[in-house]
Amino acid sequence: MFGWLSVHKNIGGEFVTLKNLDALFNPENIAVVGASNNPGKAGYVILQNLINMGYPGKIFPVNNKDEKILGLTTYRKLSEIPEKVELVVLITPSQLIFEIMDDLEVRMQERNDVRAVVCAAANYGETKTEEGIKRQNILMETTSKYGIRVVGPNCIGVIDNINRVDTTFVETLLPKESRGRKGSISFISQSGAVAASILMWGASQPVPISFNKFVSIGNMADVDFIDLLEYLEQDQDTRVIGMYLEGYPEGYRLMEVLSRITKKKPVVVLKVGRSEKGASAANSHTGSLAGSDKVYDSAFKQFGIIRVNTMEELMDTLQAFDKLPLPADEALFILSQAGGPGIFCTDAVSRHSFVKMPIISDGTKEELKKMLPPMANICNPEGYADITAAANPYHHKESLRLLLEDPTVSGVILITVVPTFLSQEELAQSLINLYKGEGYIHRKPVFMVIMAGSYVRGCRERLEKEGIYTFETPDRAANAAANLIKYTLFLKKIRSRGELND
Amino acid sequence: MFGWLSVHKNIGGEFVTLKNLDALFNPENIAVVGASNNPGKAGYVILQNLINMGYPGKIFPVNNKDEKILGLTTYRKLSEIPEKVELVVLITPSQLIFEIMDDLEVRMQERNDVRAVVCAAANYGETKTEEGIKRQNILMETTSKYGIRVVGPNCIGVIDNINRVDTTFVETLLPKESRGRKGSISFISQSGAVAASILMWGASQPVPISFNKFVSIGNMADVDFIDLLEYLEQDQDTRVIGMYLEGYPEGYRLMEVLSRITKKKPVVVLKVGRSEKGASAANSHTGSLAGSDKVYDSAFKQFGIIRVNTMEELMDTLQAFDKLPLPADEALFILSQAGGPGIFCTDAVSRHSFVKMPIISDGTKEELKKMLPPMANICNPEGYADITAAANPYHHKESLRLLLEDPTVSGVILITVVPTFLSQEELAQSLINLYKGEGYIHRKPVFMVIMAGSYVRGCRERLEKEGIYTFETPDRAANAAANLIKYTLFLKKIRSRGELND
Repeated sequence: MFGWLSVHKNIGGEFVTLKNLDALFNPENIAVVGASNNPGKAGYVILQNLINMGYPGKIFPVNNKDEKILGLTTYRKLSEIPEKVELVVLITPSQLIFEIMDDLEVRMQERNDVRAVVCAAANYGETKTEEGIKRQNILMETTSKYGIRVVGPNCIGVIDNINRVDTTFVETLLPKESRGRKGSISFISQSGAVAASILMWGASQPVPISFNKFVSIGNMADVDFIDLLEYLEQDQDTRVIGMYLEGYPEGYRLMEVLSRITKKKPVVVLKVGRSEKGASAANSHTGSLAGSDKVYDSAFKQFGIIRVNTMEELMDTLQAFDKLPLPADEALFILSQAGGPGIFCTDAVSRHSFVKMPIISDGTKEELKKMLPPMANICNPEGYADITAAANPYHHKESLRLLLEDPTVSGVILITVVPTFLSQEELAQSLINLYKGEGYIHRKPVFMVIMAGSYVRGCRERLEKEGIYTFETPDRAANAAANLIKYTLFLKKIRSRGELND
Repeated sequence: MFGWLSVHKNIGGEFVTLKNLDALFNPENIAVVGASNNPGKAGYVILQNLINMGYPGKIFPVNNKDEKILGLTTYRKLSEIPEKVELVVLITPSQLIFEIMDDLEVRMQERNDVRAVVCAAANYGETKTEEGIKRQNILMETTSKYGIRVVGPNCIGVIDNINRVDTTFVETLLPKESRGRKGSISFISQSGAVAASILMWGASQPVPISFNKFVSIGNMADVDFIDLLEYLEQDQDTRVIGMYLEGYPEGYRLMEVLSRITKKKPVVVLKVGRSEKGASAANSHTGSLAGSDKVYDSAFKQFGIIRVNTMEELMDTLQAFDKLPLPADEALFILSQAGGPGIFCTDAVSRHSFVKMPIISDGTKEELKKMLPPMANICNPEGYADITAAANPYHHKESLRLLLEDPTVSGVILITVVPTFLSQEELAQSLINLYKGEGYIHRKPVFMVIMAGSYVRGCRERLEKEGIYTFETPDRAANAAANLIKYTLFLKKIRSRGELND
């Protein structure tokens, strides 16, 4: 029943190299087979995305009825395209796969140029029907003969922001200025819907997230988690890896690769199937006999893989790893401009037993007292200060400076509910001046919470445009901070064992 | 040290009646003492809010330098206002309280019209200084002599949307059409910053939240949780009560009142101080010797008070109680258009052990199978269906209908990641036609998750404008659904004990 899952590992082994994956992310010219003139069709959106993204190579739509689509000359067949094509995107009805593969054979015999296929079409192995498996097999047989790497079938596509490739059929929501912007987060999703949600959510952040590489892996007929992880391991532009994982047939190998990567860069995983019912649903979906969640969970812990529980935590943690330096240690100070949210944050931080709230020096306490409004609560409890609603931008900035200068502090959560009578612009600017302008952003992480809603969007945008990530609520900041600390403690542990060369 | 907290209970007991609280929410004319012509001052924003809200009575700014503020005739003293004034808002520097109280005495001797004061100004009892306590005492001595009820000091104000009163100094962010709209949620906050955050967040929802009554209680020098809870208990327009709670000096009395109210309407509480550090910070902030969180927690459980953990859960749960019918039982079906988010939701639901995923009838399963796309996963596991990305609006709607018609189902979580090729408008409309048009919204709750980001905002707005609340992520829907079920189970329990008359 699940035979199709392991097919790819037995075919064309010799031709399959990491290097061939380049054609997914930086191909010389792209053909879209199944391109459409109908804006309601995926075959239209893919073309539009490639154009909107500003893909610098040539795009060749392939279908058998249109002369032009979106102004691009359309070809009847892949084999008729007169120029080099390194990447082929398939978005045709699945029953056409046999003739398309025949045509691909013709092309490869004549030109031998195609190096990768993104099969966004569905109705293949995932159907678990004889027909579906047959279709997936012909796809794999043909492509593997020529060492062509395949992503999918049954995926939403692949994005590379730096190389301006977007083969997804999710409407491009990134504003123009965010496309092609260098991102450091790369993401692999085992669910197309989760992938689409993440892209749509990422695009609506105060400063939209430009992922570096983004792959919806679909059925993993060929390219799978391990291929991509090994690729991202070597990719200099990828500083953080995110994954949405339902299950992987070779869990042991997956952990082997992950355990090697986490020594170099953080990996953040949203793994579903924690519950028995969830695992059963995952098994029906991916069909990968996922294995016990407990085994995954303990491996994650052992190998320093950061497991998150919600989409919010996933996005916040990825962004925090991307934008902030790692804390040197587990000492997190909570600096709040408001009692309620500060207390709330203290509760949230306390849920992570490995996070400590530091006892800062008497000197720092004295200086805070001298500088802050008289009502300020300084270090009651230890590791916590409430600078009160009377705090102006100067108080925010200078109290933050004092804490960042205190050697007992490895990171700060800064919470503010911008009152009506305090200029958001002024507050943002003074925090930028200190944190970025004076270079603290390279030394210690500050998790800035600007509450709440669209009223403070301007303030958050201002900060994020300067590369300072902002959080929506204190608990979200607390969770992200705890994840960074968890990774720090993991690195310390393996360093102390001599397993880390730095 | 905390003596000021109990002052109010000993003064003017005879005059203090629930009825006087009306003047906070529906006063005949309002004076704003400390009104300002400077848009950066709270004394300006309060006036602006009253005007923007469309307060139908007269507004009298009081200060000693301006002739007019925002076009309104300004008076030197409260006692000089020639018309009836039922509500006085104080936003003056705190040291002026003595002369203002002298002037209030004059007014009361002459006119005896003021019935309530909102003291938004700070620097009173909360400072725990001799001066602060003295100021609070003079305020309380004067007002209680005349049975005038006082909210604050040190609060952000009071809102009544239906009566168009907004005495807060948080910029009014509600769009015009949301002001004066009948809301059923009333909220009491022990933190001004949390109150402000909730207002700002509520205003930025797909359809902004029009609270019914909203009170930031500040120091609780007079009006406190119990007064307001008893008032809201009797308020026909309040169907759900929300609270942000740090601590209350008379915990036993609070629980007595709450245990009576939860038999009539749900109460949702965000109580901080769960952790030792958090409790210590709460104690510094509110100074109310909050008492053990464990005691609160077990009382909440016993009396059916719904405790939430995050701002998101607070807002979602309040909205769900407001907009959806209570489920008759604990059987929650997960209907997803996408595998990944559906599995994720199953995990989230499974965290609540009292929620059950129902085994629907074979008949319903058969009908689902007949109607849905061939790849659909029906009830594997039980209580779960994945209608797949091939599902069109008809599939969404009719599968939902079948489940709502199945007697084993008490509620449904419906998740959809609107694909590019499916019209959001069409999907929203068909769900509205079924759920609202055919009246299911009065019978069973459907928790609709429309993922994700601003791309689907139009779809969510369309649904919410018809009174159908939408959730941002599956886990948020799962938490809100679990909270409704928790309340249902509480009502069933007390009904079975004969403690509920219905």
